Amino acid sequence: MPTIDPERVLRDLRHLKSLAAYKTGVHRPSLSPVHIASMQWLKGELDALGHEATIDGIGNVFGFAPVNGRKVLGGSHLESQNHAGWLDGPLGVVYALEAARAVKADPALAGCGVDVAAWCDEEGHFGQFLGSRSGAGLLTEEIIDAAVDRTTGTSMREALKAAGLEGRPRIVVDAKRYVGFFEAHIEQGDWLEANNLKIGVVTAIVGSRNFKITFEGTQNHAGTTRMAIRRDAGVACARFITAIEDLFPKLCGPRTVWTTGRVTLFPGDPSIIPGKAEMLFQFRDTDAEVLERLEAGFRDLVDKANREGVCEVAFEQVRRGMPAQMDERFQEAIAAAAEACRPGCSTRMPSGAGHDAQILSEVMPACMMFVPSIGGISHHWTENTSDEDIVLGAQVYADAAGRMLKG
Amino acid sequence: MPTIDPERVLRDLRHLKSLAAYKTGVHRPSLSPVHIASMQWLKGELDALGHEATIDGIGNVFGFAPVNGRKVLGGSHLESQNHAGWLDGPLGVVYALEAARAVKADPALAGCGVDVAAWCDEEGHFGQFLGSRSGAGLLTEEIIDAAVDRTTGTSMREALKAAGLEGRPRIVVDAKRYVGFFEAHIEQGDWLEANNLKIGVVTAIVGSRNFKITFEGTQNHAGTTRMAIRRDAGVACARFITAIEDLFPKLCGPRTVWTTGRVTLFPGDPSIIPGKAEMLFQFRDTDAEVLERLEAGFRDLVDKANREGVCEVAFEQVRRGMPAQMDERFQEAIAAAAEACRPGCSTRMPSGAGHDAQILSEVMPACMMFVPSIGGISHHWTENTSDEDIVLGAQVYADAAGRMLKG
Repeated sequence: MPTIDPERVLRDLRHLKSLAAYKTGVHRPSLSPVHIASMQWLKGELDALGHEATIDGIGNVFGFAPVNGRKVLGGSHLESQNHAGWLDGPLGVVYALEAARAVKADPALAGCGVDVAAWCDEEGHFGQFLGSRSGAGLLTEEIIDAAVDRTTGTSMREALKAAGLEGRPRIVVDAKRYVGFFEAHIEQGDWLEANNLKIGVVTAIVGSRNFKITFEGTQNHAGTTRMAIRRDAGVACARFITAIEDLFPKLCGPRTVWTTGRVTLFPGDPSIIPGKAEMLFQFRDTDAEVLERLEAGFRDLVDKANREGVCEVAFEQVRRGMPAQMDERFQEAIAAAAEACRPGCSTRMPSGAGHDAQILSEVMPACMMFVPSIGGISHHWTENTSDEDIVLGAQVYADAAGRMLKG
Repeated sequence: MPTIDPERVLRDLRHLKSLAAYKTGVHRPSLSPVHIASMQWLKGELDALGHEATIDGIGNVFGFAPVNGRKVLGGSHLESQNHAGWLDGPLGVVYALEAARAVKADPALAGCGVDVAAWCDEEGHFGQFLGSRSGAGLLTEEIIDAAVDRTTGTSMREALKAAGLEGRPRIVVDAKRYVGFFEAHIEQGDWLEANNLKIGVVTAIVGSRNFKITFEGTQNHAGTTRMAIRRDAGVACARFITAIEDLFPKLCGPRTVWTTGRVTLFPGDPSIIPGKAEMLFQFRDTDAEVLERLEAGFRDLVDKANREGVCEVAFEQVRRGMPAQMDERFQEAIAAAAEACRPGCSTRMPSGAGHDAQILSEVMPACMMFVPSIGGISHHWTENTSDEDIVLGAQVYADAAGRMLKG
């Protein structure tokens, strides 16, 4: 079994945190100076390992092992959500880096290697999985031309130029060269913790449907407009959210999730009846049939609101991701590695969040493993995982990679 | 009967509009340069009439008739909501100005007069009725010290300094000197238009209760957090709004209105479960008992949400206005004047909006009259009233003032 160095894993992760520290987490938006510094650190480590390392034209970092035998491609992402957690992304990058070191040092795996990738912008500051789509050969230049930072409004082209990456080629990996892509990540939920488990073997990554729903009413004075003649878009929106919450439990699968993350009333003045309301709504499941059933139910609610309500309801689908099934052989390798490291510590489970592995799964076998999130918290600077769990995960990851390399 | 000059009324109103034009309406925030220009124009007209005219230390414009007989105090406000209508405020100021001219020219009213007031900031850019509260002797310096423009963040002290009004005394009117305060205004609703009426004799101005309601849940990842453990503050808020809409029709009076004007979910990201939600809610009625009943119902809903829901619900009362009854003798004078000008054209009705007259009613008899709003629209730049209705209203106003002056 390729053997990891626990102290080195923790030191690397803490160093990446120190480059972008915010409270007990990090603030490392895509292509920000601290993100670039993190890429450069990774390139330096890969160089030191003897990998052919490079940062490409979209900000992906690659390290290719100079070997001719079987190869695993491992990695995740380095950037973070704004003011978020230190392990979301870096954990999977450092696990891949450490596995690359451990495999290189393992005589039983001579000629095999772990290539390392840190995909840019998994967190979606500029778009949807732009880095991994580029690396998988699924991204056009036009999409990059149109990409804009959702927080700052800076175009991706400007950000790449400021980062010194303008004009560099983008690298598309040779999918056939790999036994598969392997990504580790924090769970971002409480399932492992709640069940006293340490390793999640991911069976599938959820698909999602994302909608912007608009309610058109009539803006008017909140004191002088009789209730009988009102067309209050805010009330229509609240009733719609309530109707979803009442309907979806009857249609969903056991792990379906749905969320209204944003509501905006226009003009938003306490003494003005909202003439317009907008909401952002999404639902996710690993089962394409469940997604279809939920979308049909959602469309029925829109029709009902238009038929029975006084406001006009319209929607547009702003994003649609198909569920991605994870490779069976990879799942078995991870489960076996977990069993070898600590018997009874793993479980099979879906991923409720999207990850780069779902993109890579379009071009090669792909799989993911999770380690526990303390309190299930993620996308917040208090996100954390115990040192013990981080170290155990690193060893399971390296062992699973070794099992795949042995074939 | 004191007789108005229809062309002069329309010319004055159009001139005030031209000073602050925005599309077919105006944009005249309190103490903005166009507001100051409008004050100066009014002072000039009052000077020309022979009134003792002044702009005081809070931006109120006054014109005092140099007479010893009975007096009416008339007026309204000059500033507008942002990007709003041209008549909301100026109509009542110009009616009072024209009535002052007509009364002065009427030999039957020799020795009597109409004093004119344009109260600053009725629209609440800096606070709640600051101008009329100052004029009624109900405002402390501390309240002005703390007042800040809700749009620009400029303090009222800075704005007064920039307007050249810093250090001027504030004028408190001698309430006992007047038979009463008389304010004309556009209806801001569709009652007159819908019933083919021209004059609303206001019986009472609504009282209101205004609340900020906060829902505390747990922020988390929208993809990975199971529905069973969620504490979604946005859903709690939507269910609360729906519960209000279901309950209030059972508790309300015939003219009660209630409105949720703003909803904010935190952090407002499509893929994050809202950990906090805030809503601004208000209700209005002219009957203090109805207000009490509604507030009890509202408090019951908060208790129920805390008892049965997974989020914590709290509220603070951000404003509380008591209903103001309008003077009976004044109502009779307006109704008689309307009957004289056009038989059958008036009705008694409450005011669903707050007005300066409710402040003045605390220190002297006060009354209001309404003219029709086309389509019931107000607080929007498309607000309008036909020329014919404007002119009829001006004559009814002058006649009613004359009747009050005769005693």
